[in-house]
Amino acid sequence: MTTAKRDTYTPETLLTVAVRVFNERGYDGTSMEHLSKAAGISKSSIYHHVAGKEELLRRAVSRALDGLFGILDEPGATQGRAIERVEYVTRRTVDVLIAELPYVTLLLRVRGNTKTERWAMERRREFDQRVTDLLKAAVADGDLRSDVDIRLVTRLLFGMVNSLVEWYRPLPDGGVDGQRLADTLVRVAFEGMRSSR
Amino acid sequence: MTTAKRDTYTPETLLTVAVRVFNERGYDGTSMEHLSKAAGISKSSIYHHVAGKEELLRRAVSRALDGLFGILDEPGATQGRAIERVEYVTRRTVDVLIAELPYVTLLLRVRGNTKTERWAMERRREFDQRVTDLLKAAVADGDLRSDVDIRLVTRLLFGMVNSLVEWYRPLPDGGVDGQRLADTLVRVAFEGMRSSR
Repeated sequence: MTTAKRDTYTPETLLTVAVRVFNERGYDGTSMEHLSKAAGISKSSIYHHVAGKEELLRRAVSRALDGLFGILDEPGATQGRAIERVEYVTRRTVDVLIAELPYVTLLLRVRGNTKTERWAMERRREFDQRVTDLLKAAVADGDLRSDVDIRLVTRLLFGMVNSLVEWYRPLPDGGVDGQRLADTLVRVAFEGMRSSR
Repeated sequence: MTTAKRDTYTPETLLTVAVRVFNERGYDGTSMEHLSKAAGISKSSIYHHVAGKEELLRRAVSRALDGLFGILDEPGATQGRAIERVEYVTRRTVDVLIAELPYVTLLLRVRGNTKTERWAMERRREFDQRVTDLLKAAVADGDLRSDVDIRLVTRLLFGMVNSLVEWYRPLPDGGVDGQRLADTLVRVAFEGMRSSR
Protein backbone atom coordinates (compact mmCIF):
# COMPACT_ATOMS: atom_id res chain seq x y z
CA MET A 1 0.00 0.00 0.00
CA THR A 2 2.83 2.38 0.87
CA THR A 3 4.66 1.96 -2.37
CA ALA A 4 4.28 1.43 -6.09
CA LYS A 5 1.59 3.96 -7.04
CA ARG A 6 2.91 6.56 -9.43
CA ASP A 7 2.39 10.07 -8.10
CA THR A 8 -0.23 11.56 -10.39
CA TYR A 9 -1.69 13.80 -7.70
CA THR A 10 -2.27 17.50 -7.94
CA PRO A 11 -2.53 19.54 -4.71
CA GLU A 12 -6.30 19.46 -5.30
CA THR A 13 -6.73 15.69 -5.65
CA LEU A 14 -4.32 15.09 -2.76
CA LEU A 15 -6.58 17.35 -0.69
CA THR A 16 -9.57 15.08 -1.35
CA VAL A 17 -7.67 12.12 0.10
CA ALA A 18 -6.34 14.13 3.07
CA VAL A 19 -9.79 15.46 4.03
CA ARG A 20 -11.22 11.96 4.01
CA VAL A 21 -8.45 10.74 6.32
CA PHE A 22 -8.75 13.81 8.61
CA ASN A 23 -12.49 13.19 8.97
CA GLU A 24 -11.98 9.48 9.67
CA ARG A 25 -9.10 9.74 12.16
CA GLY A 26 -9.41 13.31 13.38
CA TYR A 27 -6.81 15.91 12.36
CA ASP A 28 -4.73 15.35 15.52
CA GLY A 29 -4.82 11.60 15.04
CA THR A 30 -3.56 11.79 11.42
CA SER A 31 0.17 11.46 10.72
CA MET A 32 2.01 12.00 7.42
CA GLU A 33 2.41 8.21 7.48
CA HIS A 34 -1.39 7.80 7.45
CA LEU A 35 -1.70 10.27 4.57
CA SER A 36 1.05 8.50 2.65
CA LYS A 37 -0.68 5.13 3.07
CA ALA A 38 -4.10 6.49 2.11
CA ALA A 39 -2.75 8.24 -0.98
CA GLY A 40 -0.53 5.31 -1.92
CA ILE A 41 2.50 7.55 -2.49
CA SER A 42 5.58 8.22 -0.38
CA LYS A 43 5.82 10.95 2.23
CA SER A 44 8.43 12.74 0.16
CA SER A 45 6.02 12.76 -2.78
CA ILE A 46 3.46 14.46 -0.53
CA TYR A 47 6.06 17.03 0.53
CA HIS A 48 6.56 17.70 -3.17
CA HIS A 49 2.96 19.03 -3.28
CA VAL A 50 2.52 20.64 0.15
CA ALA A 51 4.63 21.78 3.10
CA GLY A 52 2.90 19.38 5.47
CA LYS A 53 -0.41 18.32 6.97
CA GLU A 54 -1.16 21.78 8.38
CA GLU A 55 -1.12 23.20 4.84
CA LEU A 56 -3.60 20.52 3.79
CA LEU A 57 -5.82 21.49 6.72
CA ARG A 58 -5.59 25.18 5.81
CA ARG A 59 -6.52 24.50 2.18
CA ALA A 60 -9.41 22.27 3.22
CA VAL A 61 -11.02 24.60 5.76
CA SER A 62 -10.40 27.57 3.43
CA ARG A 63 -12.53 25.86 0.82
CA ALA A 64 -15.37 25.47 3.35
CA LEU A 65 -14.98 29.02 4.66
CA ASP A 66 -14.83 30.54 1.15
CA GLY A 67 -18.10 28.79 0.36
CA LEU A 68 -19.77 30.07 3.53
CA PHE A 69 -18.49 33.66 3.37
CA GLY A 70 -19.31 33.77 -0.35
CA ILE A 71 -23.00 33.49 0.61
CA LEU A 72 -22.85 36.75 2.55
CA ASP A 73 -21.86 38.68 -0.60
CA GLU A 74 -24.69 37.33 -2.74
CA PRO A 75 -27.54 39.73 -3.58
CA GLY A 76 -30.03 37.61 -1.59
CA ALA A 77 -27.94 38.19 1.52
CA THR A 78 -27.34 41.90 1.05
CA GLN A 79 -30.60 43.26 -0.34
CA GLY A 80 -34.10 43.36 1.04
CA ARG A 81 -35.70 42.91 4.42
CA ALA A 82 -33.52 41.31 7.13
CA ILE A 83 -35.88 38.34 7.60
CA GLU A 84 -35.68 37.49 3.89
CA ARG A 85 -31.89 37.80 3.99
CA VAL A 86 -31.71 35.50 7.05
CA GLU A 87 -33.85 32.88 5.34
CA TYR A 88 -31.77 33.19 2.19
CA VAL A 89 -28.49 32.74 4.11
CA THR A 90 -29.91 29.73 5.99
CA ARG A 91 -31.00 28.07 2.74
CA ARG A 92 -27.69 28.75 1.03
CA THR A 93 -25.73 27.52 4.05
CA VAL A 94 -27.52 24.19 3.65
CA ASP A 95 -26.56 24.22 -0.06
CA VAL A 96 -22.89 24.85 0.75
CA LEU A 97 -22.86 22.18 3.48
CA ILE A 98 -24.18 19.67 0.98
CA ALA A 99 -21.92 20.76 -1.89
CA GLU A 100 -18.77 20.84 0.27
CA LEU A 101 -19.77 18.17 2.80
CA PRO A 102 -16.33 16.71 3.72
CA TYR A 103 -14.74 20.18 3.87
CA VAL A 104 -17.44 21.67 6.10
CA THR A 105 -17.43 18.51 8.25
CA LEU A 106 -13.72 19.04 8.85
CA LEU A 107 -14.25 22.75 9.60
CA LEU A 108 -16.94 21.97 12.17
CA ARG A 109 -14.77 19.38 13.93
CA VAL A 110 -11.64 21.52 14.20
CA ARG A 111 -10.70 22.02 17.83
CA GLY A 112 -7.89 24.54 18.04
CA ASN A 113 -4.51 23.01 18.90
CA THR A 114 -2.54 24.57 16.06
CA LYS A 115 -2.41 28.07 14.59
CA THR A 116 -4.43 26.97 11.55
CA GLU A 117 -7.10 25.36 13.71
CA ARG A 118 -7.41 28.47 15.87
CA TRP A 119 -7.65 30.61 12.74
CA ALA A 120 -10.40 28.35 11.36
CA MET A 121 -12.37 28.58 14.61
CA GLU A 122 -11.99 32.34 14.62
CA ARG A 123 -13.32 32.63 11.04
CA ARG A 124 -16.19 30.32 11.89
CA ARG A 125 -17.15 32.51 14.86
CA GLU A 126 -16.97 35.51 12.50
CA PHE A 127 -19.46 33.86 10.15
CA ASP A 128 -21.77 33.01 13.06
CA GLN A 129 -21.54 36.62 14.25
CA ARG A 130 -22.52 37.94 10.80
CA VAL A 131 -25.62 35.72 10.84
CA THR A 132 -26.42 36.72 14.44
CA ASP A 133 -26.30 40.38 13.35
CA LEU A 134 -28.78 39.62 10.57
CA LEU A 135 -31.07 37.82 13.04
CA LYS A 136 -30.89 40.82 15.38
CA ALA A 137 -31.90 43.12 12.53
CA ALA A 138 -34.88 40.87 11.80
CA VAL A 139 -35.91 41.00 15.47
CA ALA A 140 -35.65 44.81 15.35
CA ASP A 141 -37.93 44.79 12.29
CA GLY A 142 -40.47 42.80 14.34
CA ASP A 143 -40.22 39.82 11.97
CA LEU A 144 -38.53 37.40 14.38
CA ARG A 145 -39.91 36.60 17.82
CA SER A 146 -38.47 38.76 20.57
CA ASP A 147 -39.54 36.61 23.54
CA VAL A 148 -36.38 34.48 23.35
CA ASP A 149 -32.62 35.13 23.63
CA ILE A 150 -31.48 35.68 20.05
CA ARG A 151 -27.97 34.34 20.71
CA LEU A 152 -29.51 31.10 21.95
CA VAL A 153 -31.76 30.99 18.88
CA THR A 154 -28.72 31.46 16.62
CA ARG A 155 -27.02 28.49 18.30
CA LEU A 156 -30.11 26.33 17.91
CA LEU A 157 -30.44 27.30 14.24
CA PHE A 158 -26.78 26.47 13.58
CA GLY A 159 -27.18 23.31 15.67
CA MET A 160 -29.93 22.19 13.30
CA VAL A 161 -28.07 23.22 10.14
CA ASN A 162 -24.67 21.84 11.19
CA SER A 163 -26.20 18.52 12.26
CA LEU A 164 -26.47 17.75 8.53
CA VAL A 165 -22.79 16.80 8.44
CA GLU A 166 -23.60 13.96 10.87
CA TRP A 167 -26.52 12.39 9.05
CA TYR A 168 -26.98 13.80 5.54
CA ARG A 169 -26.15 11.40 2.72
CA PRO A 170 -26.77 12.38 -0.91
CA LEU A 171 -29.14 10.62 -3.28
CA PRO A 172 -29.24 7.83 -4.48
CA ASP A 173 -28.49 5.27 -1.70
CA GLY A 174 -31.13 6.18 0.88
CA GLY A 175 -30.22 9.82 0.70
CA VAL A 176 -32.22 13.00 0.65
CA ASP A 177 -32.72 15.50 -2.14
CA GLY A 178 -30.70 18.59 -1.27
CA GLN A 179 -33.28 21.13 -2.40
CA ARG A 180 -36.07 19.44 -0.47
CA LEU A 181 -33.86 19.33 2.60
CA ALA A 182 -33.02 23.05 2.38
CA ASP A 183 -36.70 23.85 1.87
CA THR A 184 -37.84 21.69 4.81
CA LEU A 185 -35.18 23.10 7.12
CA VAL A 186 -36.08 26.72 6.37
CA ARG A 187 -39.79 26.05 6.84
CA VAL A 188 -39.31 24.16 10.12
CA ALA A 189 -36.84 26.67 11.54
CA PHE A 190 -38.77 29.81 10.65
CA GLU A 191 -42.40 28.71 10.72
CA GLY A 192 -42.09 25.84 13.23
CA MET A 193 -43.24 22.24 13.23
CA ARG A 194 -46.79 22.98 14.34
CA SER A 195 -49.45 23.31 11.69
CA SER A 196 -50.68 26.87 11.37
CA ARG A 197 -54.39 26.90 11.99
CA MET B 1 1.00 10.01 37.24
CA THR B 2 0.78 6.25 36.65
CA THR B 3 1.59 5.29 40.21
CA ALA B 4 1.17 6.26 43.84
CA LYS B 5 -2.53 7.13 44.10
CA ARG B 6 -4.37 4.81 46.45
CA ASP B 7 -7.29 3.11 44.72
CA THR B 8 -10.35 4.61 46.39
CA TYR B 9 -12.52 4.29 43.28
CA THR B 10 -15.92 2.70 43.07
CA PRO B 11 -17.16 1.46 39.67
CA GLU B 12 -19.26 4.66 39.63
CA THR B 13 -16.45 7.18 40.23
CA LEU B 14 -14.16 5.27 37.87
CA LEU B 15 -16.87 5.65 35.24
CA THR B 16 -16.75 9.45 35.58
CA VAL B 17 -13.03 9.43 34.75
CA ALA B 18 -13.44 6.94 31.90
CA VAL B 19 -16.24 8.91 30.23
CA ARG B 20 -14.16 12.08 30.33
CA VAL B 21 -11.23 10.28 28.64
CA PHE B 22 -13.52 8.58 26.08
CA ASN B 23 -14.99 11.96 25.14
CA GLU B 24 -11.55 13.58 24.87
CA ARG B 25 -9.78 10.84 22.92
CA GLY B 26 -12.67 8.96 21.34
CA TYR B 27 -13.55 5.45 22.54
CA ASP B 28 -11.40 3.78 19.85
CA GLY B 29 -8.45 6.03 20.67
CA THR B 30 -8.54 5.21 24.40
CA SER B 31 -6.37 2.39 25.77
CA MET B 32 -6.39 0.88 29.27
CA GLU B 33 -3.05 2.68 29.64
CA HIS B 34 -4.79 6.04 29.04
CA LEU B 35 -7.49 5.16 31.58
CA SER B 36 -4.87 4.07 34.10
CA LYS B 37 -2.97 7.36 33.70
CA ALA B 38 -6.10 9.50 33.93
CA ALA B 39 -7.35 7.69 37.03
CA GLY B 40 -3.91 7.61 38.62
CA ILE B 41 -4.21 3.93 39.46
CA SER B 42 -2.69 0.81 37.89
CA LYS B 43 -4.35 -1.17 35.13
CA SER B 44 -4.75 -4.15 37.46
CA SER B 45 -6.61 -1.89 39.91
CA ILE B 46 -8.99 -0.96 37.08
CA TYR B 47 -9.52 -4.64 36.26
CA HIS B 48 -10.43 -5.08 39.92
CA HIS B 49 -13.49 -2.88 39.27
CA VAL B 50 -14.44 -3.73 35.69
CA ALA B 51 -13.72 -6.39 33.07
CA GLY B 52 -12.29 -3.84 30.64
CA LYS B 53 -12.97 -0.66 28.69
CA GLU B 54 -15.96 -2.13 26.89
CA GLU B 55 -17.72 -2.66 30.22
CA LEU B 56 -17.07 0.99 31.08
CA LEU B 57 -18.57 2.01 27.72
CA ARG B 58 -21.62 -0.18 28.32
CA ARG B 59 -22.21 1.29 31.77
CA ALA B 60 -21.77 4.83 30.47
CA VAL B 61 -24.10 4.60 27.49
CA SER B 62 -26.61 2.62 29.59
CA ARG B 63 -26.81 5.57 31.94
CA ALA B 64 -27.61 7.89 29.02
CA LEU B 65 -30.08 5.44 27.47
CA ASP B 66 -31.84 4.79 30.80
CA GLY B 67 -32.32 8.54 31.15
CA LEU B 68 -33.73 8.90 27.65
CA PHE B 69 -36.01 5.82 27.69
CA GLY B 70 -37.19 6.79 31.19
CA ILE B 71 -38.81 9.87 29.63
CA LEU B 72 -41.07 7.74 27.45
CA ASP B 73 -42.66 6.13 30.55
CA GLU B 74 -43.46 9.42 32.26
CA PRO B 75 -47.13 10.48 32.38
CA GLY B 76 -46.40 13.53 30.19
CA ALA B 77 -45.20 11.19 27.45
CA THR B 78 -48.00 8.65 27.69
CA GLN B 79 -51.13 10.69 28.34
CA GLY B 80 -52.88 13.38 26.38
CA ARG B 81 -52.80 14.64 22.83
CA ALA B 82 -49.81 13.51 20.70
CA ILE B 83 -48.59 17.07 20.09
CA GLU B 84 -48.43 17.74 23.83
CA ARG B 85 -46.61 14.45 24.36
CA VAL B 86 -44.10 15.31 21.62
CA GLU B 87 -43.40 18.70 23.16
CA TYR B 88 -43.07 17.09 26.58
CA VAL B 89 -40.59 14.48 25.31
CA THR B 90 -38.56 17.18 23.51
CA ARG B 91 -38.36 19.31 26.66
CA ARG B 92 -37.42 16.36 28.85
CA THR B 93 -34.81 15.17 26.33
CA VAL B 94 -33.11 18.55 26.72
CA ASP B 95 -33.27 18.09 30.54
CA VAL B 96 -31.64 14.65 30.32
CA LEU B 97 -28.96 15.88 27.89
CA ILE B 98 -28.05 18.61 30.34
CA ALA B 99 -28.21 16.40 33.45
CA GLU B 100 -26.19 13.58 31.87
CA LEU B 101 -24.11 15.68 29.46
CA PRO B 102 -20.88 13.59 29.30
CA TYR B 103 -22.84 10.31 29.10
CA VAL B 104 -25.14 11.49 26.32
CA THR B 105 -22.17 13.07 24.50
CA LEU B 106 -20.48 9.67 24.49
CA LEU B 107 -23.67 7.95 23.33
CA LEU B 108 -24.04 10.35 20.40
CA ARG B 109 -20.42 9.88 19.33
CA VAL B 110 -20.44 6.08 19.41
CA ARG B 111 -19.73 4.70 15.94
CA GLY B 112 -20.20 0.94 15.99
CA ASN B 113 -16.96 -1.05 15.86
CA THR B 114 -17.66 -3.28 18.87
CA LYS B 115 -20.72 -5.23 20.01
CA THR B 116 -21.44 -2.67 22.74
CA GLU B 117 -21.20 0.24 20.29
CA ARG B 118 -23.56 -1.45 17.84
CA TRP B 119 -25.98 -2.19 20.68
CA ALA B 120 -25.87 1.47 21.77
CA MET B 121 -26.56 2.66 18.20
CA GLU B 122 -29.44 0.22 17.93
CA ARG B 123 -31.01 1.44 21.18
CA ARG B 124 -30.54 5.05 20.04
CA ARG B 125 -32.35 4.33 16.78
CA GLU B 126 -35.11 2.69 18.84
CA PHE B 127 -35.53 5.88 20.86
CA ASP B 128 -35.57 8.00 17.69
CA GLN B 129 -38.20 5.66 16.23
CA ARG B 130 -40.42 6.03 19.31
CA VAL B 131 -40.28 9.81 18.94
CA THR B 132 -40.92 9.59 15.19
CA ASP B 133 -44.04 7.52 15.94
CA LEU B 134 -45.26 10.24 18.30
CA LEU B 135 -44.59 12.90 15.65
CA LYS B 136 -46.55 10.86 13.10
CA ALA B 137 -49.48 10.65 15.51
CA ALA B 138 -49.39 14.43 15.92
CA VAL B 139 -49.42 14.85 12.13
CA ALA B 140 -52.42 12.51 11.94
CA ASP B 141 -54.17 14.69 14.54
CA GLY B 142 -53.57 17.68 12.28
CA ASP B 143 -51.40 19.38 14.91
CA LEU B 144 -48.08 19.12 13.08
CA ARG B 145 -47.56 20.41 9.55
CA SER B 146 -48.07 17.76 6.91
CA ASP B 147 -46.38 19.59 4.01
CA VAL B 148 -42.95 18.20 4.92
CA ASP B 149 -41.39 14.73 5.24
CA ILE B 150 -41.84 13.81 8.90
CA ARG B 151 -38.72 11.63 8.99
CA LEU B 152 -36.69 14.61 7.80
CA VAL B 153 -38.35 16.80 10.42
CA THR B 154 -37.47 14.25 13.13
CA ARG B 155 -33.83 14.37 12.06
CA LEU B 156 -33.81 18.15 12.09
CA LEU B 157 -35.42 18.24 15.55
CA PHE B 158 -32.86 15.76 16.91
CA GLY B 159 -30.11 17.67 15.10
CA MET B 160 -31.10 20.78 17.02
CA VAL B 161 -31.50 18.96 20.35
CA ASN B 162 -28.33 16.87 20.05
CA SER B 163 -26.24 19.88 19.03
CA LEU B 164 -26.41 20.88 22.71
CA VAL B 165 -23.64 18.42 23.53
CA GLU B 166 -21.34 20.46 21.27
CA TRP B 167 -21.95 23.90 22.70
CA TYR B 168 -23.96 23.81 25.92
CA ARG B 169 -22.03 24.74 29.04
CA PRO B 170 -23.80 25.03 32.43
CA LEU B 171 -24.04 28.19 34.49
CA PRO B 172 -22.03 29.96 35.92
CA ASP B 173 -19.06 30.50 33.54
CA GLY B 174 -20.75 31.94 30.47
CA GLY B 175 -23.30 29.16 30.49
CA VAL B 176 -27.01 29.02 29.87
CA ASP B 177 -29.82 28.28 32.29
CA GLY B 178 -31.09 24.79 31.50
CA GLN B 179 -34.79 25.56 31.95
CA ARG B 180 -34.58 28.63 29.73
CA LEU B 181 -32.76 26.60 27.10
CA ALA B 182 -35.40 23.83 27.13
CA ASP B 183 -38.14 26.45 26.92
CA THR B 184 -36.49 28.33 24.02
CA LEU B 185 -35.79 25.14 22.09
CA VAL B 186 -39.38 23.90 22.34
CA ARG B 187 -40.76 27.29 21.29
CA VAL B 188 -38.39 27.66 18.34
CA ALA B 189 -38.86 24.07 17.14
CA PHE B 190 -42.64 23.97 17.38
CA GLU B 191 -43.69 27.58 16.79
CA GLY B 192 -40.73 28.69 14.65
CA MET B 193 -38.40 31.67 14.78
CA ARG B 194 -40.76 34.06 13.02
CA SER B 195 -42.94 36.29 15.13
CA SER B 196 -46.58 35.29 14.88
CA ARG B 197 -48.49 38.24 13.54
